Amino acid sequence: MTTAIAAKTKTRSADRRTHVQGALDRLTALVAADLDAVNATITGYMQSDVPMIPQLAGYLIEAGGKRIRPMLTLATARLCNYAGAGHVKLATAVEFIHTASLLHDDVVDNSSLRRGKAAANIIFGNQASVLVGDYLFSRSFRLMVETGSLATLDILANAAAVITEGEVLQLTAAKNIATSEETYMKVIAAKTAALFAAAAEVGGVIAGRPARDSQALHIYGRELGIAFQLIDDALDYGSLHDKFGKSVGDDFREGKVTLPVILAHQAGDTAERAFWTRVIADGKQHEGDLEEAIRILARHGAVARTLERAHDHAEAAKAALSIFPASPLREALCDVADFCVDRAY
Amino acid sequence: MTTAIAAKTKTRSADRRTHVQGALDRLTALVAADLDAVNATITGYMQSDVPMIPQLAGYLIEAGGKRIRPMLTLATARLCNYAGAGHVKLATAVEFIHTASLLHDDVVDNSSLRRGKAAANIIFGNQASVLVGDYLFSRSFRLMVETGSLATLDILANAAAVITEGEVLQLTAAKNIATSEETYMKVIAAKTAALFAAAAEVGGVIAGRPARDSQALHIYGRELGIAFQLIDDALDYGSLHDKFGKSVGDDFREGKVTLPVILAHQAGDTAERAFWTRVIADGKQHEGDLEEAIRILARHGAVARTLERAHDHAEAAKAALSIFPASPLREALCDVADFCVDRAY
Repeated sequence: MTTAIAAKTKTRSADRRTHVQGALDRLTALVAADLDAVNATITGYMQSDVPMIPQLAGYLIEAGGKRIRPMLTLATARLCNYAGAGHVKLATAVEFIHTASLLHDDVVDNSSLRRGKAAANIIFGNQASVLVGDYLFSRSFRLMVETGSLATLDILANAAAVITEGEVLQLTAAKNIATSEETYMKVIAAKTAALFAAAAEVGGVIAGRPARDSQALHIYGRELGIAFQLIDDALDYGSLHDKFGKSVGDDFREGKVTLPVILAHQAGDTAERAFWTRVIADGKQHEGDLEEAIRILARHGAVARTLERAHDHAEAAKAALSIFPASPLREALCDVADFCVDRAY
Repeated sequence: MTTAIAAKTKTRSADRRTHVQGALDRLTALVAADLDAVNATITGYMQSDVPMIPQLAGYLIEAGGKRIRPMLTLATARLCNYAGAGHVKLATAVEFIHTASLLHDDVVDNSSLRRGKAAANIIFGNQASVLVGDYLFSRSFRLMVETGSLATLDILANAAAVITEGEVLQLTAAKNIATSEETYMKVIAAKTAALFAAAAEVGGVIAGRPARDSQALHIYGRELGIAFQLIDDALDYGSLHDKFGKSVGDDFREGKVTLPVILAHQAGDTAERAFWTRVIADGKQHEGDLEEAIRILARHGAVARTLERAHDHAEAAKAALSIFPASPLREALCDVADFCVDRAY
């Protein structure tokens, strides 16, 4: 941790920390009725006469996850005093797009674990994961059509394309130890932040708010998403088992070139660069390499600098909400940004 | 070939046969300007800052294919005297949905050949095929949004979901030699005919035609799609190398339970059933098994009965168009239905 953040964290009172750690629960409580409606809509729209579809979709969707993305849509719609029911369908569409991309991502990454359980592709096979992802993706558009709002459809369709671009870019950069910070930031802005941004923005758009408001929500979502992914990438070399079901070293084993690695590689000496080339570019990993990677990262403060970056984006997310009048919802959305960073400590 | 069709085919004049064989070229000529616009739109909308996306998409899309599906949209829009430009975007969306489903299908089937070239998954890898399929799918929705027509969006989003249901159902039925005719018909109605139906229907809908007309176009597309797939499945045991780039025996090697196999299995004796169980259900295939399969199919007239079924659906397709006044476009659409069946002879 850099001195600046360390100081901030130290001066933050114990009360504030407890408050932040309850942020997600508090946001959930504020949109509880809407979230129940989303869960019912999820169940309704993943049905099919082909039994494998609800089985596989249910396996992943009911494993939970925190429903952060759909909650963003619900919360921003309410923040904009939306009184209709369209936000529930939009939030469900957001969760379906997210789930579809997880299903395909696990096939692409050949993952074995997701949300603390065996990944769907391990249980049902890659073939079914590809097709059920497609099904959920199609259903998400059905849901959007039913809201009758072409503007929100455009935002979410565009986000879906950008997510995929980010994943292809990530695939292209995989195992390339010379990946620049700029490329890395492009990847996470696309693969993660685009859906956070769209999820938050459509809440304002469905509420018929002026562009200034929905743009602010877009920025909130984007910055939150970037912070979220930076923390995720830091945690891969961090805590022993994150609450989000991700184990340490997944990215390392897959040869993903994330910000901590980029920073350490840039600052590294010849021996360290040779290490990164062997374990990431050549994919030749031995017993003890993860531990050695963590030691090298620590030497260069690479994880701490990643967390600091995440902290800055969380602050930018909160700042974007300042144009909205203070309310329990606005406070909860700000706290979620803090929580997102705090979960790494 | 059953006597009924044999008779029909015999009495059909040589002129008529030549006429039918030029059907696709004639339809192409009638919508040539629009098709050029579709090709330009395809190129424009598959662009991305991520170079692998246009590379892979271009590899498959520029390999050609006959663009039958987008042509249906163009032709039906013109048949309904549509004077706008939205049909070009819809037709492009249809081609993108089709291409995305081909990309994913080749991953799911582990195919090695598509349109007479190495399948994209062989050249670029399964990972890229999954992601670029997703990209094209997202872009198809962008195109639909730009037409501003929620009604056509709904039809195509629904078709996309149904296609996937069909593919999951096919996956579930794979290697199941007891698959019923009913299940088989459900699979092809969903995986193939749904997009033909939607492609034809949206041409009428974008033209603002009453439901009666767009429903007739839907039926035309659906019946044409069923005929098309039946012929495709028959050709897998038929001509030595179809013009459509499919080689004989692909389905057989993949253990797909298509109508010819279902009919032969139903009518087979104990030894024949044991043969089908070994080669399809158990996937134990030896040298000479494809030839033996073709002999058994011939013994039961299974391919001929499949072709007869296709012929009936092509007739139903043509009948659906009878509510439209005679025109070169209507004639070309009818001829395409005949051509679709004739290519098997």
